[in-house]
Parts: sequence; structure tokens; C-alpha cells
Amino acid sequence: MDIDTSALDAYLDEQGLDGYAVYAAGDDSTQRYLSGFDAPDPFFTVYTPEETALLASGLEYGRASKEARGVVDRTSDYDYQSLREEYEPGTARAKLQAAFLDAHGVDSVAVPESFPVGAADGLREEGIALAVDSAGVVDDIRAVKTDEEIEYVRDATLANEASMQACEDLLDAASVENGVLYYEGEPLTSERVATEIEVTLLQHGCALDETIVACGVDAADPHDRGSGPLEAGQPIIVDIFPRDKENGYHSDMTRTFVKGEASDTISEWYALTQEAKEAAFDALAPGATGAEVHAAVCEVYENAGYPTLRADPATETGFIHSTGHGIGLDVHEAPSLSPRGDELKPGHVVTIEPGLYDPAHGGVRIEDIAVVTEDGYENFTDYPERLEL
Amino acid sequence: MDIDTSALDAYLDEQGLDGYAVYAAGDDSTQRYLSGFDAPDPFFTVYTPEETALLASGLEYGRASKEARGVVDRTSDYDYQSLREEYEPGTARAKLQAAFLDAHGVDSVAVPESFPVGAADGLREEGIALAVDSAGVVDDIRAVKTDEEIEYVRDATLANEASMQACEDLLDAASVENGVLYYEGEPLTSERVATEIEVTLLQHGCALDETIVACGVDAADPHDRGSGPLEAGQPIIVDIFPRDKENGYHSDMTRTFVKGEASDTISEWYALTQEAKEAAFDALAPGATGAEVHAAVCEVYENAGYPTLRADPATETGFIHSTGHGIGLDVHEAPSLSPRGDELKPGHVVTIEPGLYDPAHGGVRIEDIAVVTEDGYENFTDYPERLEL
Repeated sequence: MDIDTSALDAYLDEQGLDGYAVYAAGDDSTQRYLSGFDAPDPFFTVYTPEETALLASGLEYGRASKEARGVVDRTSDYDYQSLREEYEPGTARAKLQAAFLDAHGVDSVAVPESFPVGAADGLREEGIALAVDSAGVVDDIRAVKTDEEIEYVRDATLANEASMQACEDLLDAASVENGVLYYEGEPLTSERVATEIEVTLLQHGCALDETIVACGVDAADPHDRGSGPLEAGQPIIVDIFPRDKENGYHSDMTRTFVKGEASDTISEWYALTQEAKEAAFDALAPGATGAEVHAAVCEVYENAGYPTLRADPATETGFIHSTGHGIGLDVHEAPSLSPRGDELKPGHVVTIEPGLYDPAHGGVRIEDIAVVTEDGYENFTDYPERLEL
Repeated sequence: MDIDTSALDAYLDEQGLDGYAVYAAGDDSTQRYLSGFDAPDPFFTVYTPEETALLASGLEYGRASKEARGVVDRTSDYDYQSLREEYEPGTARAKLQAAFLDAHGVDSVAVPESFPVGAADGLREEGIALAVDSAGVVDDIRAVKTDEEIEYVRDATLANEASMQACEDLLDAASVENGVLYYEGEPLTSERVATEIEVTLLQHGCALDETIVACGVDAADPHDRGSGPLEAGQPIIVDIFPRDKENGYHSDMTRTFVKGEASDTISEWYALTQEAKEAAFDALAPGATGAEVHAAVCEVYENAGYPTLRADPATETGFIHSTGHGIGLDVHEAPSLSPRGDELKPGHVVTIEPGLYDPAHGGVRIEDIAVVTEDGYENFTDYPERLEL
């Protein structure tokens, strides 16, 4: 995949720095994006306007040479074994990384905020000028997706829809005994439904192990993953955010279901949340800000008399999170649809996920995923909104 | 779970530091171990000999209060919203974290090497004395498992055995046409077998999305995950290292299979690798070093005329990795069974995984997992070694 790093070149030029360094495993999205390589242990990458260079162990060298975006050196090229014998591990690593940077003509680097302090201090000791990129320049580049990245998210969304369908089918097929859902003679639990979802995702090339299937009071806490038997008449929030196992890109969707009849409160919350989602999409356009999209959702809830964090920063009920987030290699990345959300650009892929919460009633959340286009947006999500099953 | 942090108290006392700080998400094992809490976004924890304190967002506060090992403050207790309005994000976060440390009487902290440099520099700016723990004191504490942690690994090993059995059953059931494995009318691929393994793991409460099912030349690269149709007569390395989704602890096992008849070379490698594994277990005991266990494996291979990294640091064939690694919340953690392996202690949980590799023939690896006990070791792995299927 070709990535557009012109903004990174401009940043390095402005800051008077030779390169941008990352020391992390492949599950770090800045590393994966710049290096094009995924490995389980941390490895060192330096980007310069001329080249991207990776420093790999002997174990990873072969695969890195095949898969990485740039040139690959191996640690033995810099006599790492001798350094390890002569110095403490941290010092040996710093001398190795400094020699690698020197070999690539790099005396000064920017690093992401998440760069490990041990390695940073080590490089500084070795005379490398190291500046922390607090603006997140690579995050901003990553936020604007290429056509290829957009296809990755679209594909992950199809897998997500299949898994949501598997979930809905399971809830549909369940019977109710004494207010509890039963399936194949056993109480149907959050864990059982999550496994059904995750198995379906695996069969579609995606993975997730934090699926939210939260019922009743669990649903009132947006980060509670849910546990135990599911209850009829209670809202069940199902939030699925799979990652494609091959390319690493995510999708994200939430639906709220009630087995049987929903209470008047939950029905009202549901209708209001549909309205809030629509208001957010009405505001979603290039040139608008994430703050404006978030404000549109707050308006809907506040006009209906519900608390929001905007109106009361200490509230624990009502609309108690942001409207959405960018999504790509990270499930949460730039841009933000929150009070601090900046200008939206074509290629930004974002979630729209308003919701209401109160331990007295549970919670409701509905979430779609969309890309900002030149003249508005395209909603990737093609899944019905059916509250009562 | 109770953890024994006396070594951490001694370290802080020696260094003259008030506390040990971590700023990471729950997938960081130091964070998970010290805080007892798992959250998807980074959060700040400080350990002192008197208490462990977490700083959580409003979104995580409720769950953290229920689940975390220590006391939980929320960011709004420190007027974070005003800080965000007044300062750049990095500065606001540093002032928040410094105020939290101050409220807990902490002026000086050790941090792990992986602590993010952005946050570290920010705390230094705010006058917090910050020392990098390059010795990995928490890693050393984590390496010695409690009885509860040992049970977690034992349980994950049972799940692992079930998934290896599902894999072996699938390979057994496959037919061979023109040298390629077929199942249900289609070529049987690495990806299909990995999915079978991962679905089985999910059904046993475990997760993994980097299963290695590597055949032929893919098997010659220890980190190649494998892809495409599996071939008869070729070694297939199956390496499974699941994580229990609930408690976060791992297991690890490797077996090598050949569908049909193995070549003389692969048969010889297999027998030699069994011998090397046995030699490693013979050396595994409290008081022995990881280096000695590793040397026992190198002896076997070198005596049989195969290259090792010990004999030739640049070799790309033969025994080209270490003998094993500690395992727990991380799949790779202390102690190391390698040339640099230190003294082994009761409670260390380690893998033993010798292997031989050569692109001309493929690869063979056999891996068990064991705990070092007061008088030797206990091998958790109860799974047959059957080369030809």
C-alpha cells in the first residue's frame, strides 16, 4: 500500500529533524503504518524523506525483507552480539540503534509520544537529538484513509454485519423462562453470545476478544463487556469492533436489542438515539468539525431533558461519552467527534454512536461507521435497527 | 489475586523513590499486574509501599472501582476539563498526572522502560523525579508465579490441548490429491486449520490470532505464520499460544506433523529435537540457569553436526532461536532460556521449544510448557508427539 507521507516530510523539515523513529511491535499502529511490517516483538524503524529503514533480529530478517515497506538491516550487521557482551542490555540496545541511525545518516529524530522512555533516554545518551512529536503528525496522516484502506474497513464491516446477524439470530431463537433467555436448554449468557459473534468473525477473517454483550444494569456502563444470563424485557447492548486479521483494519457497530417488550423508557431512549444519530449524520461533512457533530447529538438529548457531559461534566447518567472516533489500524484513532473535535476531511473514517445510560434502566446505543467524502459522507453500515426481538 | 511486591518495595527503598508509575492500557502486563485492571485506553497507576492508586476517566471509573487492586481517583477530581481548556493536550495530561501523584504524596517515581516518553518528559517538566527501571524489577516479580497464576496457565494449557487435537483431527481427516491436502472437497490451507484451532480456543474461553500453521519452506522460518494449501510429505509446524480471555494468562505448545511419510531428514530432525527437549528438561531445575538449559539443547544439536547460533551467530539454518521463554500475562516474558538466561527459581513458568530449520527441508519444532518447582519441574503439557499422520 502506498501512503502519502508529504505531511511528515513537511513536519521534519519544519522541525529541522532528519527522521522519524519508532521502536515498537507491529501491534503499534504507527509502527505498522510506517514500516508496513508486523512482528510480535519490538523492532526499530526510521523514516526519512529518502527511505524507510528497519532494524530486525535474525529471527525476523527474512520475513521483514519480504514484507516491510523499506530496507531492512539486521542487528548482526551492527555487531549486536559484542555490544550485548560488553554493555548492560539497555545501553547495548541504545548503541545498536544509534549505530543504525548513523549508518542511515540520521542524527536527529522525532518520535511519537508513546516511544518508550528507556530507548529515548538511551538514544539521547548516545548523542541523538530526540524530539517528541506531541502533535501526533503520523496520527493525522493515518486518519485520512486511502482508497485501499477504505476498502479494508468496508470489508471488515461486512464481517461485522455477519456477526451481528449471528447474534440477532441467536437472540431470536432463544426462549424465555422466568424472565431469563434460554437456548438449547441452558440460560443464554453474554459470554455465549459473544462467543457466537467471535466465531463468526473468525470465519470471516476477523478477530475480536472484547465483544460487548451487556444486558440491563451492565448496559448502563458503556465499557462493561457484560456477563451472565441475559434477561427478557431488558436492553442488551451489542457492540462489535472486529479487526481484519490480515490487514489490521477495524470496523465498529452497535445495536441494542430487547427480547420481548421494551419498557416505555427504553423505547423512548431508542427513538431519541435514532434521532441523535440522524442529527450527527446531518452534521457530518468535510469542513465541519468533530465538535459540531458532537454538539448536534448533545442538542437532541438536552432538548429532550437528558443530562450530557457537556451540560454537566460530572453526570453519570444520560449521554456520557463522545459521539464517535476515527477508526483504522486502531479502533480508537483520530479524528475525534467530541467537544475537542477538529476539522473533518475527506477520507476520515469515523463512528457515530450516540447513547443514553442510567443504572435504573440500563442503556441504549446505536452505532454506524462512515467515511467523510468530498461532498458529505458514505455510511458503510447496512444493518437494520430493530429494538424488540 | 494477591501479589508479592516485597521486591518492589526493596527496589524503591534502595533507589530512594516514592513510587512506581505506569501509564498504559490494560494490555500492558505491568499495568495489568500492578493495577489489577484492564481497560482499552491508557490509564495512570502509581504503586507505593502503602497503596496502589489509579487515575481513571469518568467512563472507566465505575468499572475500575469494582475491579482494580487499589484506590481509584477520577480525572474530574483534578479538574482535568479546565486543564484541557487551558493547556496543550500533553501539558494538560502532565499537570493532571503530577497533581494526582502529589495528592498521593509521591514526588519521585520509577517507571518501566516502556513508559511513554511523552508522558515521562511531561512529568519531568512538572518537577517529578523520574527514573527508568532498566532492570525490569516488576518483570522479575511477575516471572515468579503464584499458585493462582499457575492454575491459570494450567487451564490455558487444557484449552491449548483441545485446539491441538482439533488441528490433528482435521489433518487426520484430510485426503491427499496430487500431493496437496484436501478437506470437504477443497484444498486444506494453513488459514483453514488456524481458524479451526482458534474457534476451538474461543469455545474454551481463550483467544489467539497469530496461530502458526507453517508447511514446507514456510516452516523453515520460525516466525512465519504459514499460508496456502498444505502439502503431504512436508513438515507442518503448529505453534499455538492462546491467552485466557478472562484472566489474561497464556499457554504455549508446538507440535510438528507430516501428512503421509516424512523424509529421512525430517525424521532425523524430529528424533533429535525430542532428544534436545529431553536434555533441556534434564537441565531444568531451581538454581540452574536459563543459559545452562539452552546449552544442553545446543550440545545435542552440535554433537549431531547441526549449526546453532551459539556456534555461528550468523547461521540461518539449524537451531536459530533460544530454547524457551517465561510466559504469563505476556507470551514472552522473563526468565529467558538463552545464552543470557539467569538463575531459575521455583514458580518460573517457561517453554521448552528446541527446533531445526532449513529452507531446503522445512522445519521441526516441539514445545512443552512447565513450571520450575522446589525440586525440579512439572511439565503441564500432556499431548502426544506423533510426527506422521
